[in-house]
Amino acid sequence: MRVFVTGGAGFIGSNLVDTLIAQGHTVTVYDNLSSGRKEFLTAHLHSPHLTLKEADLLQPAALTKTMEGHNLVVHLAANPYVRLGETQTDLDLTQGTIATHNVLEAMRHNHIHDIIYSSSSVVYGETTGSLLSESYGPTLPISLYGAGKLGGEGLLSAYAGTFGLRCWIYRFANIVGRHGTHGVIVDFITKLNTNPHTLEILGDGRQCKPYLYVTDCVNGMLHGYTHSHDQVNLYNLSCTTTTTVTRIAEMVVEEMGLSSVKFAYTGGDRGWKGDVPRFQLDPNAMNTLGWTATYTSDEAVRKAIRDTLDANL
Amino acid sequence: MRVFVTGGAGFIGSNLVDTLIAQGHTVTVYDNLSSGRKEFLTAHLHSPHLTLKEADLLQPAALTKTMEGHNLVVHLAANPYVRLGETQTDLDLTQGTIATHNVLEAMRHNHIHDIIYSSSSVVYGETTGSLLSESYGPTLPISLYGAGKLGGEGLLSAYAGTFGLRCWIYRFANIVGRHGTHGVIVDFITKLNTNPHTLEILGDGRQCKPYLYVTDCVNGMLHGYTHSHDQVNLYNLSCTTTTTVTRIAEMVVEEMGLSSVKFAYTGGDRGWKGDVPRFQLDPNAMNTLGWTATYTSDEAVRKAIRDTLDANL
Repeated sequence: MRVFVTGGAGFIGSNLVDTLIAQGHTVTVYDNLSSGRKEFLTAHLHSPHLTLKEADLLQPAALTKTMEGHNLVVHLAANPYVRLGETQTDLDLTQGTIATHNVLEAMRHNHIHDIIYSSSSVVYGETTGSLLSESYGPTLPISLYGAGKLGGEGLLSAYAGTFGLRCWIYRFANIVGRHGTHGVIVDFITKLNTNPHTLEILGDGRQCKPYLYVTDCVNGMLHGYTHSHDQVNLYNLSCTTTTTVTRIAEMVVEEMGLSSVKFAYTGGDRGWKGDVPRFQLDPNAMNTLGWTATYTSDEAVRKAIRDTLDANL
Repeated sequence: MRVFVTGGAGFIGSNLVDTLIAQGHTVTVYDNLSSGRKEFLTAHLHSPHLTLKEADLLQPAALTKTMEGHNLVVHLAANPYVRLGETQTDLDLTQGTIATHNVLEAMRHNHIHDIIYSSSSVVYGETTGSLLSESYGPTLPISLYGAGKLGGEGLLSAYAGTFGLRCWIYRFANIVGRHGTHGVIVDFITKLNTNPHTLEILGDGRQCKPYLYVTDCVNGMLHGYTHSHDQVNLYNLSCTTTTTVTRIAEMVVEEMGLSSVKFAYTGGDRGWKGDVPRFQLDPNAMNTLGWTATYTSDEAVRKAIRDTLDANL
């Protein structure tokens, strides 16, 4: 299969490319390298099975031309920093919703029908229910990142209904692991490298979310694609467990071999405006398809801490 | 109150302006007159309570400047033709989601906190359930119009969560009545004026939807605004009944005083790609707030037919 991966040099994208190439597929990575890194694809840069196109999704002509001849699009590219929307209010509109529209238009022009899309648990917003299934509604995101993802979901669904596209929409838990470039684990390690005595923790540390290891995420996306055949396939992609921010901090301290680190909480129930402090995703629909996460949330976090520490050695 | 109404020269907007001015409010209409008409505001054009600004939502500087000093924004402007998205694939992205983003940015710059937004029942997409409540999910629109509206909902919700905005999101039934410029009633009357013997009906005529009279819509929007005080207030705005397309055709024929009109169905279960053929909205949440539709769906349709025939006299 010829697979076109937007954001394929990024965190999740580069892990996906490893798997796709190992499975014998030919891959084109389309990435502007704004948060993706060429070095994440080092193993394949001289492979005939990988083409890297350094370009932006906001260049529709380049996008349409490069996409020609592929069978499947995996659209992962987006601003990866949820909290940036607070200060750059057009970022998620542009790099989220509008970029997704450009991807769909390029598919339409090239008569490509299948797309896998990385949505996010943040589309649910701040909910009162404990366990969020895909049928939870209304989806009221509290971050501009979430609005961008929800806008993307709507576009995929509309192109399915109007132009016959088939789509696989995944609402991701927090994905962590090898090639991770952002998020709470990277933040904590960076802070402790600078000051190993005191760790600033945003909020009260009781924020509690599911963390999914990146290989579980990649395998889940591909499993759903081969096992679910509706026109619009929408799934939570998550483990069943969760981890608190304070527990992450404790594990980072342990894995870095530090002791007597003082945790300095900034206070409040959340890290920043637009942060959803507590949620749990119901992975039952994906489980029914035959996929389950290999790692618990705590295991995923610990593995990701080790990955990040190894990468910095 | 100083109310800023986008699309205020349009169908629903001009009816809203009548009510707002009758209630003693001062209104600024911001409209590019692409589907709105200055004549819909004739009664107020010389009133000190109405300012008409002919400009586009895609002009952020004009928008921000004009919005200054208002207390409430009612954002109704959008492409009103659901089926256009099939051929003009950037229309609902631009005039829907991006325009809504511009409205929210202008509010943020002007420190205006309250917005009423016209979403649509089409955000639900094609559903299996019979009666759609606001908690129905996932919302998977099948038209690009629906994607634009869903993208707008997400943006309002995100600006509420991130910047403290308060929003009233209404998922409208099919709104009909005075100043209606498009939709099945106008289409049928136009066709029968040209050919009073045969009426082409898109689909099989069994499409069945709730039709809400425009004054019910206007009163519902304002009722929810004064009676619901959450940060994000999301409501279906609908009557409890529905009307089939064939029944509408029969009523148009009756009201036009025609007889022996042959109905020529184009066939298929829907009018066009992206048309949701059958749905019913649960208005229970609005009913609980103390609002109910004055007219049944059939009554609304008949009243709207008479309005349209009167307007053409």
